Amino acid sequence: MADHDYSRTPWGDPDPVRAHAETLVDWSARVEAGDRVVVRVSEGAHDLAVAVAASLGSRGATPVFVSGSDEVTRAYLHAADEADLADPAVDHERALYSRADAVLSLRGGRNTAARADVPDATRRAHVRGRAGVREARFETDWVSTVHPTRALAQQAGMSYEAYRSFVYDAVLRDWAALADEMAGLKARLDAASEVRIVDDGADLTLDVSDRVAVNSAASVAYDSHNLPSGEVFTAPLSADGVVTFDVPMTVDGRRVRDVTLRLEDGEVVDHDAGEGGEAVASILDTDDGARRLGELGVGANEGIDRPTDSILFDEKMAGTVHLALGRAYDACVPDGSGNDSAVHVDLIRRMGEGSRLEFDGEVVQRDGTFV
Amino acid sequence: MADHDYSRTPWGDPDPVRAHAETLVDWSARVEAGDRVVVRVSEGAHDLAVAVAASLGSRGATPVFVSGSDEVTRAYLHAADEADLADPAVDHERALYSRADAVLSLRGGRNTAARADVPDATRRAHVRGRAGVREARFETDWVSTVHPTRALAQQAGMSYEAYRSFVYDAVLRDWAALADEMAGLKARLDAASEVRIVDDGADLTLDVSDRVAVNSAASVAYDSHNLPSGEVFTAPLSADGVVTFDVPMTVDGRRVRDVTLRLEDGEVVDHDAGEGGEAVASILDTDDGARRLGELGVGANEGIDRPTDSILFDEKMAGTVHLALGRAYDACVPDGSGNDSAVHVDLIRRMGEGSRLEFDGEVVQRDGTFV
Repeated sequence: MADHDYSRTPWGDPDPVRAHAETLVDWSARVEAGDRVVVRVSEGAHDLAVAVAASLGSRGATPVFVSGSDEVTRAYLHAADEADLADPAVDHERALYSRADAVLSLRGGRNTAARADVPDATRRAHVRGRAGVREARFETDWVSTVHPTRALAQQAGMSYEAYRSFVYDAVLRDWAALADEMAGLKARLDAASEVRIVDDGADLTLDVSDRVAVNSAASVAYDSHNLPSGEVFTAPLSADGVVTFDVPMTVDGRRVRDVTLRLEDGEVVDHDAGEGGEAVASILDTDDGARRLGELGVGANEGIDRPTDSILFDEKMAGTVHLALGRAYDACVPDGSGNDSAVHVDLIRRMGEGSRLEFDGEVVQRDGTFV
Repeated sequence: MADHDYSRTPWGDPDPVRAHAETLVDWSARVEAGDRVVVRVSEGAHDLAVAVAASLGSRGATPVFVSGSDEVTRAYLHAADEADLADPAVDHERALYSRADAVLSLRGGRNTAARADVPDATRRAHVRGRAGVREARFETDWVSTVHPTRALAQQAGMSYEAYRSFVYDAVLRDWAALADEMAGLKARLDAASEVRIVDDGADLTLDVSDRVAVNSAASVAYDSHNLPSGEVFTAPLSADGVVTFDVPMTVDGRRVRDVTLRLEDGEVVDHDAGEGGEAVASILDTDDGARRLGELGVGANEGIDRPTDSILFDEKMAGTVHLALGRAYDACVPDGSGNDSAVHVDLIRRMGEGSRLEFDGEVVQRDGTFV
């Protein structure tokens, strides 16, 4: 290993997998000596798990590695009764998470469609039945990240080699510097009452008064639980106007692109899509909250230069804004009055030439670049 | 799948992996509806984990899948302080096992030498530090089994295809029938005071008075925690004579074959080996108990027709006997007076033409075949 010099890589470490693990453990999860850690490992993320094990060992933390295989889960879901799924005997699993200081999820499957044939009702029963386990996990310093796999490269329409570089460009940032930059944007968004998005095919005005923005800098120290991150987001109170989302994505296994929403008094009153219109209609019909917005986010990660059909990356892309139909994050609405819904579906727009993002009438981004 | 007829396979199931999973869940671990189960999955055992998930789901049990990668463990052990290993923060892991009804270990790595460069002292500190986790696991209905991998085939010196057949021949037995057969052997061994092993290169007499034999029929219902199993074993009180063990094996990463032991009053007074003499000497020098016998076992699994350098299989081979240096199993010595040691190393002998196994002077096995 000493014969090679990889130190000219953008991340200054000869081994990007190790650098990823150390960023996750130190910057994102803030793991300390004596911490009890659960590491959830997807089928394709074994190499990252090895690096995370080394990183945790050297910090004096004690890990338990839990296996997160989509194929194993699918087999269980197909075989189990819906009644058992709704009321499962999970106290052993809940005990594991409730005694953990941090939970690191290393995603990266071998087939993004591995659970495609699990019926919706089964899926929902499983999610509902595991609410207690999820809550225990969310009370820890939890962080989700992604190890580059061939399946994810395929989903992105990229070669494995190019996708790997893409992931490490997104993950191995100078996070402290980005956190400082985004702090300015957060402060301005907190102070603003009105956000306006103006672009070819978009003129939308959002009321954000009294809401608190999150500086999502890929660390639990910033209320941010994704690596990569790199966005500032808040929960709009209301919205009026029209916006088209040009970034294509897969929602519940269905391809969606060029969705146009018209909003009045915060509610979607009309919608259209270049592809996947039924999927959008079905999301909007979930419940009352699904027709209102739960999030306005502004992407700021310069390492993410293209959409890859993965929301973890796409919504952080520099030069984009995104809105979510459905549930608002509690952190943005301390008084608990945020929009409530069973869904939270992000839709993304690249801000093009001639576009403007305005806070209280002041242009903060022009042509997709912060001013 | 319906187009093919695999029902003429020895196990009468078109899918041996599924049959393996069902044998493990139903016969071995006796899983019932509502059970909380932990499934430990080695790197190479994913396909078996999928089948076990389906089996547990259909029984109404709730599984947690824990990842057991030798490479992950090695990375952790190399990075961690010995002090942290000796006193790790494992209460989250202990809580998981102490609330479990059953623990299923699916072994099957991708490299049997994956931990070869972990120093002995590190290994020992790790084992000692995890005593509490291990005890919690041993209080459940725990079972260890093996999924055939290419690494295990290589260790056995076999093609993958042949090794796969070998494993399923050993695992997919009529266990209830074998349990009934072995019950007779157990009863005779319980009643006997003296066992004599006579063969070319062996004449050993063992005192087994007042010891209780285990009918190891691959089920927790028989105090048996291995799948496959198929042996009857007890804990000898004393032994006198000479015996040579011709089955080659790897002990602590060192190849050992043709070990000869001379015993007087239950203690090894002389030893020799065709290969690996230093390994044998180092075992004997571990502590006082390492020079005495902890086990006499008689193999009875007709599906295991050759040694494969895996103790889980080799010691159950029909037509063999094995003795273990070191620790006795509690189940064989209810009054707790069994041999104590930090080691338990099994050594195996194939009983050849002209050999005899005698209980109180009566021949129970001749030429390696039960009479």
